[in-house]
Amino acid sequence: MADTVRINLNDIREISTEILEKVGYGRNHASAIADMLYTCQLDDCQSHGLFRLFMCHETMKAGKIDGNAEPVLAESDNAIVRVDARGAMSLLAVEKAMPHLIAKTRKFGIAAMAVNNCFHFSALWPEVEQLSAVGLAGMSMVPSHSWVAPAGGTRGTLGTNPLAFSWPRSGRSPFTFDFATSAFARGEIELYKRAGKPLPEGVAVDANGAPTTDPQAALDGAMLTFGSYKGSALSIMIELLAGPLIDDLTSMESMEFAEGKGGAPYHGQIILAFDPEQFSGGKAAANDARAERLFADIVDQGARLPSQRRFEARKRNQERGYVEVPAALLDDLRNLTA
Amino acid sequence: MADTVRINLNDIREISTEILEKVGYGRNHASAIADMLYTCQLDDCQSHGLFRLFMCHETMKAGKIDGNAEPVLAESDNAIVRVDARGAMSLLAVEKAMPHLIAKTRKFGIAAMAVNNCFHFSALWPEVEQLSAVGLAGMSMVPSHSWVAPAGGTRGTLGTNPLAFSWPRSGRSPFTFDFATSAFARGEIELYKRAGKPLPEGVAVDANGAPTTDPQAALDGAMLTFGSYKGSALSIMIELLAGPLIDDLTSMESMEFAEGKGGAPYHGQIILAFDPEQFSGGKAAANDARAERLFADIVDQGARLPSQRRFEARKRNQERGYVEVPAALLDDLRNLTA
Repeated sequence: MADTVRINLNDIREISTEILEKVGYGRNHASAIADMLYTCQLDDCQSHGLFRLFMCHETMKAGKIDGNAEPVLAESDNAIVRVDARGAMSLLAVEKAMPHLIAKTRKFGIAAMAVNNCFHFSALWPEVEQLSAVGLAGMSMVPSHSWVAPAGGTRGTLGTNPLAFSWPRSGRSPFTFDFATSAFARGEIELYKRAGKPLPEGVAVDANGAPTTDPQAALDGAMLTFGSYKGSALSIMIELLAGPLIDDLTSMESMEFAEGKGGAPYHGQIILAFDPEQFSGGKAAANDARAERLFADIVDQGARLPSQRRFEARKRNQERGYVEVPAALLDDLRNLTA
Repeated sequence: MADTVRINLNDIREISTEILEKVGYGRNHASAIADMLYTCQLDDCQSHGLFRLFMCHETMKAGKIDGNAEPVLAESDNAIVRVDARGAMSLLAVEKAMPHLIAKTRKFGIAAMAVNNCFHFSALWPEVEQLSAVGLAGMSMVPSHSWVAPAGGTRGTLGTNPLAFSWPRSGRSPFTFDFATSAFARGEIELYKRAGKPLPEGVAVDANGAPTTDPQAALDGAMLTFGSYKGSALSIMIELLAGPLIDDLTSMESMEFAEGKGGAPYHGQIILAFDPEQFSGGKAAANDARAERLFADIVDQGARLPSQRRFEARKRNQERGYVEVPAALLDDLRNLTA
């Protein structure tokens, strides 16, 4: 980075909560959001760290979010934890429901969390890594806004619909991935536009549904999914599991709800958790070795496991006690509450 | 098809069981396999219908499969149905465990089936469609043989690792997909080789790990996943969930177990099931309408839902009472047991 400044790890949460409270989030929400921003910033995940304070601010300005609502857990005997975010940001609801998801997974072997009625702006990997940190495998999905055309289609129906997964590795960073099922992130298209560069082929269609490499035409039209028909099918599955399955909005409905106002989309989230001890009939340790052999064979041939750069950044930043962010980011954040 | 013959629907199972019993499968296994072949053939899914009798024969000839072993269900109080196929084909084990998976899903809201120690040759969609037929959503995954290189890699580590999903639609055929996470099916590469045609770019690497469009070099080297790094990450997830999670083999281990002999790979299978009624807090019907609006928006723009061609074939073949298969297939099947 050309012009960067250091922020001590201890200051990340403080900077975040101060801004969040100033723009209208209550203490509990500010704290849950600040934890997420800390986790992302620690891993040099710039797009989902402190930078997201702008999105939190815009969401508040759009006027639909509740900055104070306390999430409500539904009582249940089954393996599903349902938590109602009541029109607030998702993170406090997930924070409240996570211990219940872990307890249900240890009881039933497999369990799910359904988060309803939440605004959502965050990366999914920190939440599935909370599961792998306690020895469970985790998977998470959310819809977004209907910016993405299905394979063979001409207009936005699907969200960017990310899928995240984390697998616990004994004594090591977990195997984690978190990817959008759109071929490109919407922010990437903005970057191409600003740089005046054409998009690669196969990433977007224009407002008439014709393939385009023009970033503005893509923003006016629709993005495409990664992996053609397969990626499109996967994205539809995510719409269904994180939407109608859990009695919450599809990306189309989330887009309508927003009424053209900015900020984070409003919808649901699903998190699945798996207990290797119960799935393996008590042989999780022996199967750790089996999984490690798989990872070793991938790394030995020069391929990278997903998230490795992030784990390297985490280690480095933890050791030196600070993160580096663009100087302009800090200036912009100061202006935000000036 | 140039030269086809008709087979009455009533005869598909009979032809299958007769051949299966002749080549060494006991009655219960022959019947479970015949049900699978019938289901696929009814939908004109030629690659996984009667054609697979050759694979069943080759698997028996390879000498490692047990044609008679009865699957054993593990007792459990949790939401996991574990069934041991005991070295036989997977299908009888899945048949035995499926009612328990359905019962556990209705009890717990989410449940899983782990099938262990099975040979596996079949499409996954018939099994997830058994779930959607009773109003549940289903997902299934299996590894295979390590023919597929991870993104950025140079040699086979991953299987073709299919993912199947089915969503129940009230009064309609379900939303179902079933795709390999390899860019191409291995059989497709064989077809390119026979036709003397080069492969598309990005589908395979040669034995030195260099990109190749030569079908034979691809068969000697490794296939690639669909969707680059994202497809590769998804494939690794499938290895983990259908392998080490459930105390069963990875695709690398399955390949080693086969010792170069032909036939179906030997490994495990995982099936997940979701009860929309419980996930939605009793609002499944209202959410059906929400899902239907999503499907309608996809179809209205000229895109196809996956499996539509298959459902059309099913309807046509059920109405006319027969399927059409290549004449050569029937000749070859007669020779198989001559």
